[in-house]
Amino acid sequence: MGRERKEKGTRVERELINLLWDNGFAAVRVAGSGSASFPCPDVVASNGKVVLAFEVKTRSKLPMYLTYQEVKELVMFSNLFGAKPYIALKIPRREWYFIEIDVLVKTSKGFRVDEEVVSRSCDVNEVLGKSRQLRLF
Amino acid sequence: MGRERKEKGTRVERELINLLWDNGFAAVRVAGSGSASFPCPDVVASNGKVVLAFEVKTRSKLPMYLTYQEVKELVMFSNLFGAKPYIALKIPRREWYFIEIDVLVKTSKGFRVDEEVVSRSCDVNEVLGKSRQLRLF
Repeated sequence: MGRERKEKGTRVERELINLLWDNGFAAVRVAGSGSASFPCPDVVASNGKVVLAFEVKTRSKLPMYLTYQEVKELVMFSNLFGAKPYIALKIPRREWYFIEIDVLVKTSKGFRVDEEVVSRSCDVNEVLGKSRQLRLF
Repeated sequence: MGRERKEKGTRVERELINLLWDNGFAAVRVAGSGSASFPCPDVVASNGKVVLAFEVKTRSKLPMYLTYQEVKELVMFSNLFGAKPYIALKIPRREWYFIEIDVLVKTSKGFRVDEEVVSRSCDVNEVLGKSRQLRLF
Protein backbone atom coordinates (compact mmCIF):
# COMPACT_ATOMS: atom_id res chain seq x y z
CA MET A 1 0.00 0.00 0.00
CA GLY A 2 1.31 3.50 -0.83
CA ARG A 3 2.22 5.84 1.99
CA GLU A 4 -0.43 8.41 1.05
CA ARG A 5 -3.19 5.81 0.99
CA LYS A 6 -2.01 4.42 4.33
CA GLU A 7 -2.12 7.89 5.93
CA LYS A 8 -5.61 8.46 4.55
CA GLY A 9 -6.60 5.09 6.00
CA THR A 10 -5.23 6.05 9.43
CA ARG A 11 -7.13 9.36 9.28
CA VAL A 12 -10.52 7.74 8.66
CA GLU A 13 -9.80 5.10 11.30
CA ARG A 14 -9.23 7.94 13.81
CA GLU A 15 -12.46 9.58 12.66
CA LEU A 16 -14.33 6.33 13.37
CA ILE A 17 -12.60 6.01 16.78
CA ASN A 18 -13.81 9.53 17.69
CA LEU A 19 -17.35 8.70 16.56
CA LEU A 20 -17.37 5.56 18.72
CA TRP A 21 -16.03 7.30 21.87
CA ASP A 22 -18.55 10.13 21.35
CA ASN A 23 -21.25 7.47 21.48
CA GLY A 24 -20.12 5.79 24.67
CA PHE A 25 -17.94 3.05 23.18
CA ALA A 26 -14.32 2.30 24.10
CA ALA A 27 -12.55 1.90 20.76
CA VAL A 28 -9.00 1.13 19.66
CA ARG A 29 -7.06 1.12 16.41
CA VAL A 30 -5.28 -2.18 15.86
CA ALA A 31 -1.50 -1.98 15.34
CA GLY A 32 -0.24 -3.45 12.07
CA SER A 33 -3.66 -4.71 11.07
CA GLY A 34 -2.56 -5.07 7.46
CA SER A 35 0.59 -7.05 8.27
CA ALA A 36 -0.02 -8.91 11.54
CA SER A 37 0.57 -12.66 11.67
CA PHE A 38 -2.95 -13.25 13.03
CA PRO A 39 -6.25 -12.20 11.44
CA CYS A 40 -7.32 -8.84 12.78
CA PRO A 41 -9.58 -5.92 11.97
CA ASP A 42 -8.67 -2.21 11.81
CA VAL A 43 -10.78 -1.10 14.78
CA VAL A 44 -12.27 -2.93 17.77
CA ALA A 45 -14.91 -1.37 20.05
CA SER A 46 -17.22 -2.29 22.91
CA ASN A 47 -19.49 -0.66 25.45
CA GLY A 48 -19.61 -3.81 27.55
CA LYS A 49 -22.76 -4.99 25.77
CA VAL A 50 -22.28 -4.50 22.05
CA VAL A 51 -18.88 -5.66 20.72
CA LEU A 52 -17.83 -4.51 17.24
CA ALA A 53 -15.00 -5.21 14.78
CA PHE A 54 -14.45 -3.01 11.73
CA GLU A 55 -12.52 -3.22 8.51
CA VAL A 56 -12.29 0.49 7.66
CA LYS A 57 -12.32 1.73 4.08
CA THR A 58 -12.47 5.08 2.36
CA ARG A 59 -13.28 5.45 -1.33
CA SER A 60 -14.23 8.49 -3.38
CA LYS A 61 -16.20 6.33 -5.78
CA LEU A 62 -17.84 2.95 -6.03
CA PRO A 63 -17.72 0.06 -6.70
CA MET A 64 -15.13 -0.95 -4.11
CA TYR A 65 -13.59 -4.42 -4.18
CA LEU A 66 -12.56 -6.45 -1.14
CA THR A 67 -10.37 -9.54 -1.28
CA TYR A 68 -11.77 -12.84 -0.08
CA GLN A 69 -8.84 -13.01 2.39
CA GLU A 70 -9.53 -9.71 4.17
CA VAL A 71 -13.22 -10.47 4.61
CA LYS A 72 -12.43 -13.99 5.80
CA GLU A 73 -9.95 -12.66 8.36
CA LEU A 74 -12.45 -10.10 9.66
CA VAL A 75 -15.06 -12.82 10.12
CA MET A 76 -12.62 -15.30 11.71
CA PHE A 77 -11.40 -12.68 14.18
CA SER A 78 -14.93 -11.57 15.02
CA ASN A 79 -16.19 -15.12 15.59
CA LEU A 80 -13.43 -15.80 18.10
CA PHE A 81 -13.50 -12.37 19.76
CA GLY A 82 -17.27 -12.41 20.07
CA ALA A 83 -17.70 -9.27 17.96
CA LYS A 84 -20.15 -8.31 15.23
CA PRO A 85 -18.15 -7.65 12.02
CA TYR A 86 -18.70 -4.67 9.72
CA ILE A 87 -17.07 -3.06 6.73
CA ALA A 88 -17.03 0.63 7.73
CA LEU A 89 -17.03 2.69 4.54
CA LYS A 90 -16.42 6.43 4.46
CA ILE A 91 -17.15 8.17 1.19
CA PRO A 92 -15.92 11.81 1.35
CA ARG A 93 -18.76 14.34 1.83
CA ARG A 94 -21.17 11.51 2.66
CA GLU A 95 -21.97 9.76 5.94
CA TRP A 96 -20.48 6.51 7.27
CA TYR A 97 -21.89 3.27 5.88
CA PHE A 98 -21.64 0.10 7.96
CA ILE A 99 -21.95 -2.95 5.77
CA GLU A 100 -22.78 -6.38 7.15
CA ILE A 101 -20.90 -9.30 5.64
CA ASP A 102 -23.94 -11.07 4.21
CA VAL A 103 -24.88 -7.94 2.21
CA LEU A 104 -21.60 -7.98 0.22
CA VAL A 105 -21.83 -9.15 -3.39
CA LYS A 106 -19.60 -12.13 -4.18
CA THR A 107 -17.26 -11.89 -7.17
CA SER A 108 -14.82 -14.48 -8.56
CA LYS A 109 -11.94 -13.15 -6.40
CA GLY A 110 -13.72 -11.62 -3.44
CA PHE A 111 -16.52 -9.18 -2.79
CA ARG A 112 -17.94 -6.02 -4.34
CA VAL A 113 -19.56 -3.00 -2.68
CA ASP A 114 -21.69 -0.89 -5.02
CA GLU A 115 -24.46 1.68 -4.47
CA GLU A 116 -26.99 -1.15 -4.15
CA VAL A 117 -24.95 -2.69 -1.30
CA VAL A 118 -24.50 0.73 0.33
CA SER A 119 -28.28 1.28 0.22
CA ARG A 120 -28.64 -1.89 2.31
CA SER A 121 -25.99 -0.86 4.87
CA CYS A 122 -26.56 0.17 8.48
CA ASP A 123 -26.19 3.67 9.85
CA VAL A 124 -24.24 4.47 12.98
CA ASN A 125 -27.26 4.25 15.30
CA GLU A 126 -28.16 0.76 14.14
CA VAL A 127 -24.57 -0.42 14.58
CA LEU A 128 -24.31 1.00 18.09
CA GLY A 129 -27.60 -0.63 19.06
CA LYS A 130 -29.33 2.69 19.58
CA SER A 131 -32.34 2.19 17.35
CA ARG A 132 -33.70 -0.04 14.66
CA GLN A 133 -34.65 1.84 11.56
CA LEU A 134 -37.75 0.82 9.71
CA ARG A 135 -36.75 0.30 6.09
CA LEU A 136 -39.70 0.50 3.75
CA PHE A 137 -37.74 0.87 0.52
CA MET B 1 10.41 6.77 25.58
CA GLY B 2 13.69 5.72 23.90
CA ARG B 3 13.55 3.82 20.63
CA GLU B 4 15.25 0.74 22.08
CA ARG B 5 12.84 0.55 25.00
CA LYS B 6 9.90 1.00 22.63
CA GLU B 7 11.11 -1.87 20.41
CA LYS B 8 11.56 -4.09 23.47
CA GLY B 9 8.01 -3.15 24.48
CA THR B 10 6.66 -4.11 21.07
CA ARG B 11 8.51 -7.45 21.24
CA VAL B 12 6.98 -8.48 24.57
CA GLU B 13 3.56 -7.30 23.40
CA ARG B 14 3.90 -9.64 20.41
CA GLU B 15 4.98 -12.45 22.74
CA LEU B 16 1.82 -11.92 24.80
CA ILE B 17 -0.31 -11.82 21.62
CA ASN B 18 1.14 -15.20 20.58
CA LEU B 19 0.47 -16.67 24.02
CA LEU B 20 -3.16 -15.49 23.85
CA TRP B 21 -3.82 -16.86 20.33
CA ASP B 22 -2.18 -20.17 21.34
CA ASN B 23 -4.76 -20.36 24.11
CA GLY B 24 -7.82 -19.71 21.97
CA PHE B 25 -8.10 -15.96 22.42
CA ALA B 26 -8.32 -13.37 19.63
CA ALA B 27 -5.83 -10.67 20.62
CA VAL B 28 -4.70 -7.36 19.14
CA ARG B 29 -1.96 -4.83 19.83
CA VAL B 30 -3.37 -1.33 20.18
CA ALA B 31 -1.91 1.30 17.82
CA GLY B 32 -0.31 4.32 19.52
CA SER B 33 -1.38 3.16 22.97
CA GLY B 34 1.15 5.50 24.60
CA SER B 35 0.06 8.56 22.64
CA ALA B 36 -3.61 8.12 21.75
CA SER B 37 -6.11 10.83 22.66
CA PHE B 38 -8.33 8.33 24.45
CA PRO B 39 -7.37 6.03 27.32
CA CYS B 40 -6.28 2.67 25.99
CA PRO B 41 -4.32 -0.42 26.95
CA ASP B 42 -1.46 -2.09 25.03
CA VAL B 43 -3.30 -5.32 24.24
CA VAL B 44 -6.98 -6.31 24.09
CA ALA B 45 -8.16 -9.93 23.91
CA SER B 46 -11.34 -11.97 24.07
CA ASN B 47 -12.57 -15.51 23.46
CA GLY B 48 -16.19 -14.37 23.40
CA LYS B 49 -16.56 -15.08 27.12
CA VAL B 50 -13.53 -13.69 28.93
CA VAL B 51 -12.54 -10.16 27.82
CA LEU B 52 -9.10 -8.88 28.84
CA ALA B 53 -7.16 -5.58 28.68
CA PHE B 54 -3.42 -5.49 29.36
CA GLU B 55 -0.85 -2.83 30.11
CA VAL B 56 2.31 -4.71 29.10
CA LYS B 57 5.62 -4.18 30.90
CA THR B 58 9.03 -5.77 30.82
CA ARG B 59 11.62 -5.20 33.54
CA SER B 60 14.85 -6.99 34.33
CA LYS B 61 14.52 -6.08 38.00
CA LEU B 62 11.99 -4.94 40.54
CA PRO B 63 10.52 -2.78 41.95
CA MET B 64 8.72 -1.35 38.93
CA TYR B 65 6.80 1.90 39.20
CA LEU B 66 3.59 2.77 37.36
CA THR B 67 2.14 6.26 37.10
CA TYR B 68 -1.28 6.96 38.53
CA GLN B 69 -2.34 8.15 35.05
CA GLU B 70 -1.51 4.93 33.18
CA VAL B 71 -3.26 2.74 35.73
CA LYS B 72 -6.27 5.06 35.77
CA GLU B 73 -6.51 4.96 31.97
CA LEU B 74 -6.30 1.16 31.93
CA VAL B 75 -9.13 0.93 34.46
CA MET B 76 -11.28 3.56 32.70
CA PHE B 77 -10.89 1.81 29.36
CA SER B 78 -11.62 -1.61 30.86
CA ASN B 79 -14.74 -0.43 32.69
CA LEU B 80 -16.23 0.95 29.48
CA PHE B 81 -15.06 -1.90 27.22
CA GLY B 82 -16.26 -4.55 29.64
CA ALA B 83 -12.79 -6.04 30.08
CA LYS B 84 -10.89 -7.29 33.09
CA PRO B 85 -7.71 -5.16 33.46
CA TYR B 86 -4.24 -6.57 34.17
CA ILE B 87 -0.67 -5.35 34.30
CA ALA B 88 1.14 -8.04 32.28
CA LEU B 89 4.74 -8.17 33.50
CA LYS B 90 7.48 -10.09 31.74
CA ILE B 91 10.73 -10.47 33.62
CA PRO B 92 13.40 -12.01 31.33
CA ARG B 93 14.06 -15.71 32.05
CA ARG B 94 10.95 -15.87 34.24
CA GLU B 95 7.29 -16.53 33.40
CA TRP B 96 4.57 -13.94 32.75
CA TYR B 97 2.97 -12.34 35.79
CA PHE B 98 -0.56 -10.93 35.52
CA ILE B 99 -1.20 -8.39 38.23
CA GLU B 100 -4.68 -7.30 39.22
CA ILE B 101 -5.14 -3.61 39.96
CA ASP B 102 -6.13 -4.01 43.60
CA VAL B 103 -2.88 -5.88 44.32
CA LEU B 104 -0.68 -2.90 43.32
CA VAL B 105 0.95 -0.97 46.17
CA LYS B 106 0.02 2.72 46.22
CA THR B 107 2.84 5.27 46.39
CA SER B 108 2.66 9.07 46.53
CA LYS B 109 2.80 9.39 42.72
CA GLY B 110 1.36 6.11 41.52
CA PHE B 111 1.86 2.42 42.13
CA ARG B 112 4.70 0.03 42.89
CA VAL B 113 5.21 -3.59 41.85
CA ASP B 114 7.70 -5.50 43.99
CA GLU B 115 8.35 -9.23 44.60
CA GLU B 116 5.56 -9.26 47.21
CA VAL B 117 3.09 -7.96 44.60
CA VAL B 118 4.41 -10.43 42.00
CA SER B 119 3.88 -13.30 44.47
CA ARG B 120 0.20 -12.31 44.59
CA SER B 121 -0.18 -12.11 40.80
CA CYS B 122 -2.13 -14.50 38.56
CA ASP B 123 -0.59 -16.98 36.15
CA VAL B 124 -1.71 -17.32 32.56
CA ASN B 125 -4.25 -20.10 33.29
CA GLU B 126 -6.03 -18.07 35.92
CA VAL B 127 -6.22 -15.05 33.62
CA LEU B 128 -7.61 -17.09 30.74
CA GLY B 129 -10.24 -18.62 32.99
CA LYS B 130 -8.79 -22.12 32.62
CA SER B 131 -8.35 -23.00 36.25
CA ARG B 132 -8.28 -21.55 39.70
CA GLN B 133 -5.11 -22.30 41.53
CA LEU B 134 -5.27 -23.09 45.19
CA ARG B 135 -2.80 -20.81 46.92
CA LEU B 136 -1.84 -22.09 50.32
CA PHE B 137 1.24 -19.94 50.86
